[in-house]
Amino acid sequence: MTARILDGKAVAETINRETAVGAATLMRERGVRPGLAVVLVGENPASRVYVNTKEKKAAELGFHSVKVELPKECTQDRLLAEIAKLNADPLVHGILVQSPPPPQIDERAVVLAIDPRKDVDCFHPFNVGKMLIGDRDGFFPCTPWGVVVLLQRSGIEVAGKHVVVIGRSNIVGKPLLALLVQKAAGADATVTVCHSRTPDLAEHCRRADVLIAAMGRPEFVKAEMVKPGATVVDVGINRVTDPAAKNGYRLVGDVAFAEVAAVAGAITPVPGGVGPMTIAMLMRNALDACRRLTE
Amino acid sequence: MTARILDGKAVAETINRETAVGAATLMRERGVRPGLAVVLVGENPASRVYVNTKEKKAAELGFHSVKVELPKECTQDRLLAEIAKLNADPLVHGILVQSPPPPQIDERAVVLAIDPRKDVDCFHPFNVGKMLIGDRDGFFPCTPWGVVVLLQRSGIEVAGKHVVVIGRSNIVGKPLLALLVQKAAGADATVTVCHSRTPDLAEHCRRADVLIAAMGRPEFVKAEMVKPGATVVDVGINRVTDPAAKNGYRLVGDVAFAEVAAVAGAITPVPGGVGPMTIAMLMRNALDACRRLTE
Repeated sequence: MTARILDGKAVAETINRETAVGAATLMRERGVRPGLAVVLVGENPASRVYVNTKEKKAAELGFHSVKVELPKECTQDRLLAEIAKLNADPLVHGILVQSPPPPQIDERAVVLAIDPRKDVDCFHPFNVGKMLIGDRDGFFPCTPWGVVVLLQRSGIEVAGKHVVVIGRSNIVGKPLLALLVQKAAGADATVTVCHSRTPDLAEHCRRADVLIAAMGRPEFVKAEMVKPGATVVDVGINRVTDPAAKNGYRLVGDVAFAEVAAVAGAITPVPGGVGPMTIAMLMRNALDACRRLTE
Repeated sequence: MTARILDGKAVAETINRETAVGAATLMRERGVRPGLAVVLVGENPASRVYVNTKEKKAAELGFHSVKVELPKECTQDRLLAEIAKLNADPLVHGILVQSPPPPQIDERAVVLAIDPRKDVDCFHPFNVGKMLIGDRDGFFPCTPWGVVVLLQRSGIEVAGKHVVVIGRSNIVGKPLLALLVQKAAGADATVTVCHSRTPDLAEHCRRADVLIAAMGRPEFVKAEMVKPGATVVDVGINRVTDPAAKNGYRLVGDVAFAEVAAVAGAITPVPGGVGPMTIAMLMRNALDACRRLTE
């Protein structure tokens, strides 16, 4: 293996320390504590794990944390009423509704119901639009922003480089495109977006100085798709069955780590790469929301 | 010259005929006429030409048309008050403020003041965000949407093709990117965006099946930057001084037309390419706005 490992866990810890300092400063100067509300509808076990992780991190950083648990048969109206309460709650500065909600819930209506000033996931079109036009007074979505910051803090300059993004989801691929193309620090890249309808995907990938895999297909990116020395960022988290593993499965990314690490110049691991960055940027967004709302 | 000329004027006329039919239908079925308000601040002669063109086209299509002319020393508050009146006016369904406004006007605040349901330029972040996430109940911005529709109506399929966009402006490059990457008709392309910070621009351009020039540099794209048989779309409109011309200048695009036409498979002319499409899509947006607001 030749590639340098980009340690998302360590960078996320640095950011979390900065966030804790920011929260302490707000408490000292304004007597306010950043408040993060997480809404969980139903019993999805994976969702519960995510929500607990967020709650724990919020507590660690000195945030006020609210968990709203609603039954799986919760109506749309009930959920919207809970969101309205959180919008009006002066102790809450960030609101997120854990995905996926049960089928009776219209996720789009839920996103539109959240006050854009508290939309720390950056799912509201108003904030998505601000991101694309380069306004920096909204929010950036946590995972793609985490990718940008991880590269920046690892000293990997993307300005003037060719970045190839595989995947065009609303939560990762499209916002990555929007962030990387800006004339701004940590951006200013030439960006190509590839996806399921790209016929010559491997050829596009081989041209990348920085290759970002975010399509949700386990170990899809192989060594022969990577230019020697390129930086490879793995956004995927996939469960693959593994009879030898304790739980019967193991987590792998969208990149075939071992073989790609032999070719790449730098690579993010799974876990310990982009994952911890996502939570760190969420907390950072909640801090920013609190700062703006109490100005 | 070998390239097929993509006749934007003819396609725009077809769309305008469809829009006129749509307007007549609305009048027959609901007794309403699409209303387009254009606000002009100051005396910029080029702006006046654009405004007059829009007003004339609106009249041709059977629209109600309002022109609000404000003096060049108009205050921000006065302009916002005029916009508020237009937002509240039930006879007005589309509002646009001609750019560039005089320096005392904060263009960003003006954009945010327009009711997103009447934002037929698609400059409001709420509509920009909807476009990026693939919601089709906002608006698409007129010039990039005009490019997409011109290709579609000319039978040039971009799905599965590699489209290279030169330029990352908020009014053309970034929205083009957002439109072309969607999983939707007229889109589904692999998209690369290049700009002033792209070191090997010519190499990227030569890989394009469809090359879209939108950086505002006269005749920048030369024959050697184009893959033989590629489609070339020229969004640029630049005045270059020409002592032989009647006005002392002539209009050229971002593409060196004659030499590129000898290599390309298809090309848009300037004028008569993207320009007429922009106005056609504006009128189409105003029709859609009227239809939705009177539902």
